[in-house]
Amino acid sequence: MLPKTKFAPLADCLHEVNSGITHPRGFVAAGVASGVKTRHKLDLGLLASSTAGVSAVMSTSNAVAAAPVTVTREMCDCSRLRAVVVNSGIANACTGVQGLADALRMRRVAAGHLGLPEEQVAVASTGLIGVPLPMEQIEPGIAVAAQALSARAPMRFATAIRTTDRHAKSGAFDVRLEEGVVRVGLAAKGCGMISPKMATMLCFVTCDAIVTAGAWDELLRGAVAASFNRITVDGQQSTNDMVVGLCSGASGVKPGPAGVAKLGEALRAALKALAVAIVADGEGSTCIVQLTVSGARDVATAESVARSIANSPLVKTAFYGRDPNWGRIMQAAGQVLGGDDAVASSVTIAYEEVVIVRHGEPTVFDEAQRCRLRDVMHQSEIALHVALGKPGGAAATVYFSDLTHDYVTLNAEYST
Amino acid sequence: MLPKTKFAPLADCLHEVNSGITHPRGFVAAGVASGVKTRHKLDLGLLASSTAGVSAVMSTSNAVAAAPVTVTREMCDCSRLRAVVVNSGIANACTGVQGLADALRMRRVAAGHLGLPEEQVAVASTGLIGVPLPMEQIEPGIAVAAQALSARAPMRFATAIRTTDRHAKSGAFDVRLEEGVVRVGLAAKGCGMISPKMATMLCFVTCDAIVTAGAWDELLRGAVAASFNRITVDGQQSTNDMVVGLCSGASGVKPGPAGVAKLGEALRAALKALAVAIVADGEGSTCIVQLTVSGARDVATAESVARSIANSPLVKTAFYGRDPNWGRIMQAAGQVLGGDDAVASSVTIAYEEVVIVRHGEPTVFDEAQRCRLRDVMHQSEIALHVALGKPGGAAATVYFSDLTHDYVTLNAEYST
Repeated sequence: MLPKTKFAPLADCLHEVNSGITHPRGFVAAGVASGVKTRHKLDLGLLASSTAGVSAVMSTSNAVAAAPVTVTREMCDCSRLRAVVVNSGIANACTGVQGLADALRMRRVAAGHLGLPEEQVAVASTGLIGVPLPMEQIEPGIAVAAQALSARAPMRFATAIRTTDRHAKSGAFDVRLEEGVVRVGLAAKGCGMISPKMATMLCFVTCDAIVTAGAWDELLRGAVAASFNRITVDGQQSTNDMVVGLCSGASGVKPGPAGVAKLGEALRAALKALAVAIVADGEGSTCIVQLTVSGARDVATAESVARSIANSPLVKTAFYGRDPNWGRIMQAAGQVLGGDDAVASSVTIAYEEVVIVRHGEPTVFDEAQRCRLRDVMHQSEIALHVALGKPGGAAATVYFSDLTHDYVTLNAEYST
Repeated sequence: MLPKTKFAPLADCLHEVNSGITHPRGFVAAGVASGVKTRHKLDLGLLASSTAGVSAVMSTSNAVAAAPVTVTREMCDCSRLRAVVVNSGIANACTGVQGLADALRMRRVAAGHLGLPEEQVAVASTGLIGVPLPMEQIEPGIAVAAQALSARAPMRFATAIRTTDRHAKSGAFDVRLEEGVVRVGLAAKGCGMISPKMATMLCFVTCDAIVTAGAWDELLRGAVAASFNRITVDGQQSTNDMVVGLCSGASGVKPGPAGVAKLGEALRAALKALAVAIVADGEGSTCIVQLTVSGARDVATAESVARSIANSPLVKTAFYGRDPNWGRIMQAAGQVLGGDDAVASSVTIAYEEVVIVRHGEPTVFDEAQRCRLRDVMHQSEIALHVALGKPGGAAATVYFSDLTHDYVTLNAEYST
């Protein structure tokens, strides 16, 4: 089940069920301990569709893309994928020609066991950069995973793709359309190197509706834009980000235009809940902030101000200290605004409903408001509003986590 | 004296002497405890030139500029300043109309005591944002400071402008020109909200050469571009940044073109040493990194890659952990490069002289190299080289500090 958050209530059309990536008909998955990670931790996942459906892939725009990203987006038939093989622990990024050979071999071995053409199998990896894959463990691991494929163990797949995630991130939903019920399954990993610019983690989405490849691509792209592109943990965009969506068609339900729109709405809501869960699990985080910047000249300005605030280490440490330090918010906003945005005298800032700055000047608080603000700052989910002051101006929302001692500990000690 | 660093050796023409901002002839200064800060800490500084010289001012490009910045750059004769009044503890930023009135009053009171026209007195503040200045303490403080003005206490001025700085930053130099000796004095504060984009702290520069206002402005601008614009602690640009240079002409030495060029060289070296000292004093920092990005398509690309690496919390925590985690360097570089920069297969990365990645692939180390790398990572000053691989390409250098538990502690607890 996805963690519940007030920021991403599930759409009415989404009915959550206690399953995961294999909930939609036609899918099997497995998660095994191949030995990439120590102590028998699950580290290799396999996901396959038993029917020929459609698929879509979105991947990192980082110029340093990992070998599995290159293989998947340049050498696979991304609209006709039938399976994904994924390992955690080692990212197979910055591994040169050997890395490409290893990613191709992962694909070939998985395709062999599944009886599929190689170009219908996507490859993904996540973990340490710059280390070669131990293929002598990966290869037998794929064989074991292929033997273990089943519709009954979605959590093993979701667990096998984790790195520093505190929780496995998985979900399953029924979507009730006029034409009948279709199903959506999710599994994702991500908590560090998270920034709101295209799909900054691994996410696998399954569905069993009958839709065209073009429609599926559009549905997934819209859902990613409204979810993963709106979050940041540390402003760092990964080399391995990938969203792979497989749609089996095995429900036999073929939605019309209204049904496709409803399915799109459901996907957006489900992926947004997942994206917020990723921020909530941000490395070392103790709170999640929903930041809405409004009253901007245009959407690009609203987004750029929102990201400047969301990625400011000073703003993030202030939230960790439960300090409503609006001066740092003003400073981070001003940093990306031009001198002609006379923002200092027009900004209004509120933590939840508590207005702390109105038209650029601090509001005067009574004791009740001071207590309320203290309570708000101790919530684990805080809504922050920054209105730049242009009437009818553009708005943007992002989600971010705080910067804590544990973030520093995790990332100073993650590898040696 | 400025702290010594291998990254900013002093130019041959600079002879450091044991003094500070009042070393050049014609200057007096004072630092007093006005009561803005608690426990009798020095918090108000006054600096004045006894002769009519020339001056130059550079200030923040943050759209949210503090009241003293607005007053100084819009209401002062910035090429004919004779004095500066500065307080620490409260930034007088985001304080609305009252803040402007207070900054104007600081200027009027200081000008009155000094017998100068108001437009020849600059105003600067640094500290907490969004809090009004306690003028009932500032005003008598200025009176006391005016009484205390002297050429013998430059350290009191340097101390009075500190906020979270661990050390006062001050220096004094003789510059031996063909035409005679001229003197340079420095005082600066800064350790957080430091980013390589125009003058991100307070810095006061004095000199006693006879130069035109135009030449002085050009000298100071060139020195700032080569020093303060090349450092970052946390990528955050302050609302209060200001560099004020006063040149009294009181040495009686009027350099010709060669002398002016030599003075420029001396100023660049002195300000660079000061800038590196600011990074070394970066909030919570345990090391300072000189990052040179070379082999880029153009200078803008080299700078953007350098800043992406220098501001990456993952790179910064890796340095804190003394971990030569070059994967995070690749990731941060790739984040700002286009897909057509085939950087993954051409990057070479070295920590000091130890090449860890050559043409995109990790080098194979023997035991001696491993030991050497471990030693390098434990230095307090580390040179990092990232060659993007374009032969004869452009280069840029920036200086940054690591991200530590103490940074988080300082900024989570700085205000409540």
